[in-house]
Amino acid sequence: MAAEAVEFLDAFHAEQRVPGLAARLAEVREEIALTGSYRHTREELVYGARVAWRQSARCVGRVRWAGLRVRDRRHVTTAAGIAEELAAHLAAGDNGGRIQSVITVFAPDRPGVGPRARIWNDQLVRYCGHPRGDGSVLGDPGQVGMVLAARRLGWRPPPVPGRFDLVPWVIETAHESPTVWEVPRELVREVALSHPDHPWFADLMLRWHALPVISNMRLRIGGVDYSCAPFNGHYLGDEIGTRNMGDRDRYDQLPVVAAGLGLDTSREDTLWREHAALVLNQAVLHSFRVAGVRVSDPHTESELFMKFCAQEERAGRPVHGDWSWLNGSVGWAALHAVHHRYYDTRVPNPNLWQTDRAYEPDGVVEMTLRERHALARAQED
Amino acid sequence: MAAEAVEFLDAFHAEQRVPGLAARLAEVREEIALTGSYRHTREELVYGARVAWRQSARCVGRVRWAGLRVRDRRHVTTAAGIAEELAAHLAAGDNGGRIQSVITVFAPDRPGVGPRARIWNDQLVRYCGHPRGDGSVLGDPGQVGMVLAARRLGWRPPPVPGRFDLVPWVIETAHESPTVWEVPRELVREVALSHPDHPWFADLMLRWHALPVISNMRLRIGGVDYSCAPFNGHYLGDEIGTRNMGDRDRYDQLPVVAAGLGLDTSREDTLWREHAALVLNQAVLHSFRVAGVRVSDPHTESELFMKFCAQEERAGRPVHGDWSWLNGSVGWAALHAVHHRYYDTRVPNPNLWQTDRAYEPDGVVEMTLRERHALARAQED
Repeated sequence: MAAEAVEFLDAFHAEQRVPGLAARLAEVREEIALTGSYRHTREELVYGARVAWRQSARCVGRVRWAGLRVRDRRHVTTAAGIAEELAAHLAAGDNGGRIQSVITVFAPDRPGVGPRARIWNDQLVRYCGHPRGDGSVLGDPGQVGMVLAARRLGWRPPPVPGRFDLVPWVIETAHESPTVWEVPRELVREVALSHPDHPWFADLMLRWHALPVISNMRLRIGGVDYSCAPFNGHYLGDEIGTRNMGDRDRYDQLPVVAAGLGLDTSREDTLWREHAALVLNQAVLHSFRVAGVRVSDPHTESELFMKFCAQEERAGRPVHGDWSWLNGSVGWAALHAVHHRYYDTRVPNPNLWQTDRAYEPDGVVEMTLRERHALARAQED
Repeated sequence: MAAEAVEFLDAFHAEQRVPGLAARLAEVREEIALTGSYRHTREELVYGARVAWRQSARCVGRVRWAGLRVRDRRHVTTAAGIAEELAAHLAAGDNGGRIQSVITVFAPDRPGVGPRARIWNDQLVRYCGHPRGDGSVLGDPGQVGMVLAARRLGWRPPPVPGRFDLVPWVIETAHESPTVWEVPRELVREVALSHPDHPWFADLMLRWHALPVISNMRLRIGGVDYSCAPFNGHYLGDEIGTRNMGDRDRYDQLPVVAAGLGLDTSREDTLWREHAALVLNQAVLHSFRVAGVRVSDPHTESELFMKFCAQEERAGRPVHGDWSWLNGSVGWAALHAVHHRYYDTRVPNPNLWQTDRAYEPDGVVEMTLRERHALARAQED
């Protein structure tokens, strides 16, 4: 812990030109010796969260790192309080459709024990996958496990289940068992998808939400873990058009759109999948734009990322990157980032990490946070 | 040299179940001690060339490695002899349109000195880039340097230059200065591009050749370098449709095709580039298929690569791979290889390597092979 803390505080004081490094280091060393950890100042937290984004190897939108709004909610530790703050996060991120990048940071993990609070959802806004008797899924097949987990906790799906029902939040804390919270629907902006050249497209009745809020990543700053720290940017069009709508294990809409277009799907080399994916992506970008909701196309985002790389190199910092994520998920030819460079693949700090799943694929829970913290307390006694 | 030779001979005898390893090792050790190198048997050369392909991290078509036809032409050392063998390679690879994978191996490099023969061209079939007075290029901008280099050697472009003139071969050897050789046009199969749904596409008068023969890579087997060893597979459609036709520094046809399609090119988020690239790729796959020329679409190739990975893992061998080449150049969404795995990134042996350029971008030569070999001889005396 101490070595990572020193590295972080060095960087914070140097980059932000904050005086008093020696005194702060002495203070933190003493606090770690006494308590096993230390508490970030508000300024350290803000800087640390922004740098964690700047150093996220898989994110192509990092040029906006310095504009991240950091909501310090370390004092909020009950499930009810967290649910209220998640709702406030949705409103802050939505920002009337002009999506603002926001992170809400709850209490840090307890060293050696684990998170003090956990959101089971991978994102704050997701659509239910309702398993049907015949093995198929109504809605998003990627969310079946989460729906099963919520049902085990007593949640009941809507009486008439649909393809775009919001997945409820499941929140647990060190002193409370997991509880289910309905997402306030009025805070979830959605965009109905239509295509500028194909009127029939709107009849597919597809839609997507405006705000991607990642809630299953651990923010780590100077040796301190914040496992409960949901954050959002805005969407890249192809995350919706290619991945969410197109993937076979998600909404699987390529055959549907190909049928609408009358494409020959009898052989792969007609490239009907690419054609359908193109039309889906055009629909997403068009619909979001018409609705006044911020969204990025791959060309603009790729140019911005090149600008970010140039900025970082001017500042004398290495650009950490994971090629396969920076280029792969986009999946289109003719982008700037694709051919021109490799990236530093070392793992920097501060950073963001995937958290462990709270539940098994069938929705079963191995051990709640409450049990884990109780066990730790019992072992201390 | 000796360590690499032993590693290679071990693998050859084990994988091919050839007896007599100990005797062969003793023989090779003695030969290296006496001459500084050793001569591969015909069987070792065939096996080594095939394994070099199998281990080429950037190639997605490796499932066909065991079917590589190896032409042993180590005894051919004059430019005239090499030119004749290159022509024979074109015929063997073309195989009536049912493209056959072929490598032609000329004499190995002289240790400590360099290649005994060098083909300046990066591929045996390429189209000229003719620089025009206004700074633009007629034909393939990627071949301007090669055209300038050939002109410095006395070659004259056709009286009426076109967009698809064949680049002549430049060949030099240890005892001959570089000479220029016209490519036998009757051996170069070409496909005129048309589109199944857009009759106007044929009026663009685009075409491409059937055979990609890489001629600027060094084959290395068991410590022995073969810098002159051109080889071919068959085309992936997107190498032509996306890269050669679409790239801004190549034929730059996206705006032309977009104009034909009547697309809105005033903003990037209409995805007009992707739409034009799709149509180009469809045209390539369609035209090659109608012409009876073997070509791969990304879906089929991706499935075959997954099959290759499975085969290799069953054989207990690691799959070496460069993610960015295996997925990136294809540049399409919805492929199998894209999301599902990472690869062993260590560099195995035997393998293939890029050779040094024979000439500078402006066509100037620093030192011919002949001069280099003469210098080495002078230093020995």
